[in-house]
Amino acid sequence: MSIITLTSDWNSADFYVGAIKGKILSQCHEVNIVDISHNIQAFNTAQAAFVLRNSYPSFPKGSIHLILVNTEPSDDKPMLAVQSNGHFFIGTDNGIFSLAGGEEPEKVVLLGSDNSSSQSSLDIFCEAACKLASGISIENIGKVIKEINVRKPLRPTIEDSTLTGSVIYIDSYQNAITNISRELFEKLIQNRSFEIYVQSKHYRISNISKLYNEVPVGELLALFNSIGLLEIAINNGNAARLLNLDTNSTVRIEFSERKK
Amino acid sequence: MSIITLTSDWNSADFYVGAIKGKILSQCHEVNIVDISHNIQAFNTAQAAFVLRNSYPSFPKGSIHLILVNTEPSDDKPMLAVQSNGHFFIGTDNGIFSLAGGEEPEKVVLLGSDNSSSQSSLDIFCEAACKLASGISIENIGKVIKEINVRKPLRPTIEDSTLTGSVIYIDSYQNAITNISRELFEKLIQNRSFEIYVQSKHYRISNISKLYNEVPVGELLALFNSIGLLEIAINNGNAARLLNLDTNSTVRIEFSERKK
Amino acid sequence: MSIITLTSDWNSADFYVGAIKGKILSQCHEVNIVDISHNIQAFNTAQAAFVLRNSYPSFPKGSIHLILVNTEPSDDKPMLAVQSNGHFFIGTDNGIFSLAGGEEPEKVVLLGSDNSSSQSSLDIFCEAACKLASGISIENIGKVIKEINVRKPLRPTIEDSTLTGSVIYIDSYQNAITNISRELFEKLIQNRSFEIYVQSKHYRISNISKLYNEVPVGELLALFNSIGLLEIAINNGNAARLLNLDTNSTVRIEFSERKK
Repeated sequence: MSIITLTSDWNSADFYVGAIKGKILSQCHEVNIVDISHNIQAFNTAQAAFVLRNSYPSFPKGSIHLILVNTEPSDDKPMLAVQSNGHFFIGTDNGIFSLAGGEEPEKVVLLGSDNSSSQSSLDIFCEAACKLASGISIENIGKVIKEINVRKPLRPTIEDSTLTGSVIYIDSYQNAITNISRELFEKLIQNRSFEIYVQSKHYRISNISKLYNEVPVGELLALFNSIGLLEIAINNGNAARLLNLDTNSTVRIEFSERKK
Repeated sequence: MSIITLTSDWNSADFYVGAIKGKILSQCHEVNIVDISHNIQAFNTAQAAFVLRNSYPSFPKGSIHLILVNTEPSDDKPMLAVQSNGHFFIGTDNGIFSLAGGEEPEKVVLLGSDNSSSQSSLDIFCEAACKLASGISIENIGKVIKEINVRKPLRPTIEDSTLTGSVIYIDSYQNAITNISRELFEKLIQNRSFEIYVQSKHYRISNISKLYNEVPVGELLALFNSIGLLEIAINNGNAARLLNLDTNSTVRIEFSERKK
Repeated sequence: MSIITLTSDWNSADFYVGAIKGKILSQCHEVNIVDISHNIQAFNTAQAAFVLRNSYPSFPKGSIHLILVNTEPSDDKPMLAVQSNGHFFIGTDNGIFSLAGGEEPEKVVLLGSDNSSSQSSLDIFCEAACKLASGISIENIGKVIKEINVRKPLRPTIEDSTLTGSVIYIDSYQNAITNISRELFEKLIQNRSFEIYVQSKHYRISNISKLYNEVPVGELLALFNSIGLLEIAINNGNAARLLNLDTNSTVRIEFSERKK
């Protein structure tokens, strides 16, 4: 049974969620519709991309992911179906395909035609999803093109012995997830010691924990989370709220030569 | 696989959602349970009806829709199964069947019996849904009756060259959806020009847009949305919040003879 | 098709919900994933237990319930799979197994091994769930142990002719659900009359209603709800908000000998 996932900013009191599920089930009976989230903030492409980027790889290859945020198409933001890493993404090319699935997709096709101006974008998305679900190859559901709009995620910067990153996501527990990956950290640290500064010199962390409960309840900690990103948390607390962190807040790591 | 949809005001932190899904799956194994919404405002029959009316037609004919808002039955509000437009609706007859599925259903049966006073209404609804899902005809799951309680939706009024409607729904994007249909508008406009006034003469719109992004970001617009109703929106903005619109706010269209 | 239910405090805008659904569907294709709730308050084990305890018995025996609240394991809170009343529960033993499924489970096995320290607890939970779903017996998915951590729910106390209970849950309608069961009430009442006092002597109820609408709109009432617990409600109102009730608020029943 093909899997079609839904990620939207519709919020679950709206009729759009029911309408799209009905449209899909009317067109393709043998699919498994999976809600990823309908609570993305309205118009927040970056949040939708973060959620999808960190959940789609868990699904089986061949899954079809509908991205239902900022779907209104325009000449420079066409409706697309995109194949990346063996998964299919369907939505409007506002940069989200590059943020969620990577900048170099395997295949890209334009959806909708000159005759389709009377069809809503949701109808076009559902039709494309059901074609893919029924086994039609992506090249046969639209005109093949080469490029997608690329939107670059904010990356950490390195200057001398300082790595400066930023908070990119606040999760349900008020943990602040940064754009500093374990990979980058391990490349830079070598044999040096380090201090992590959250926003200012006021909040300082000198260790990477493995588990939240390695520190006493209420204490600040840093760990690399399940998606390999540095996370600032408080054991059993609400780090983002208490430290007044938001997306774009600065997290800085200073490396120093003396051995710990 | 039969489809059973759920629309409730239970809010998703409550145990009722899990309980009803479990009851259904215990009684009928081969069904596809689809969440339409569990975030209807408590007791808000009109909101539930709006959500269902605009999503159920997307589902395949024969789908079964449980309406789980204001379900407590009384002598004049019995539990019913109703067939309208080839779909089945199950709930308590507080007027919602007429609002969601139309005033003249094809078939209506009473649910529950004198012996069923010890059964909860949810149990009775689940049992009815599973009987329909297993192919039992609606006439065989309860006593056939003729009438349902009819609750009239608020309709726009026409006086001279003025069409006065009202906002009936605020969606996730703070778009204000009115009860003025494209059909009515097109019948009235003929060759005349028009101005749309939102609440007072203060906010005026002179065009119907096709897309939200036809106007600059932050500008007010009106369009007929995917369900054919006039919608007041702001491109990338929050019309209802900014214009202080709520359900029942007035939207007026004045037609005038001079050609545009 | 095996049923795997999900109960979490992840809130539905987070990527964890999508990630775990994807992991499950990647490992076991023929399962029915059912969302019970993702809106448990962060870290609120008692709320998660209440929701699960009152919904899992509706599911068919053999269903697998993932408990995704406070999942971080420690030496005294290991990851477990537990069989209670013919259902399977998977999570971390923070006391929730005893609160949700009872203090004396049929079977308990430890999950994870010394080699599994690199695996996240979610991966271990998903793997265990999929093994159970595929028909492997619980004894074969981990080391059998005898005991679980027992956390006692707050029970009502009886002193002379007074039964003192407390509010344990506020539902979506602001009904206040207490820990006083119909069974206990019926055992105590015999032929006596009673008065129910909510918080102080200020709010008094002298009857048990069968339906919310037995009293006029806006009036206070008490009834035994669908799960057999005494509930304080207002017909069409918000009892908890209006009476300022919260979990742990006191509800007292005084029995007196004179016949009513």
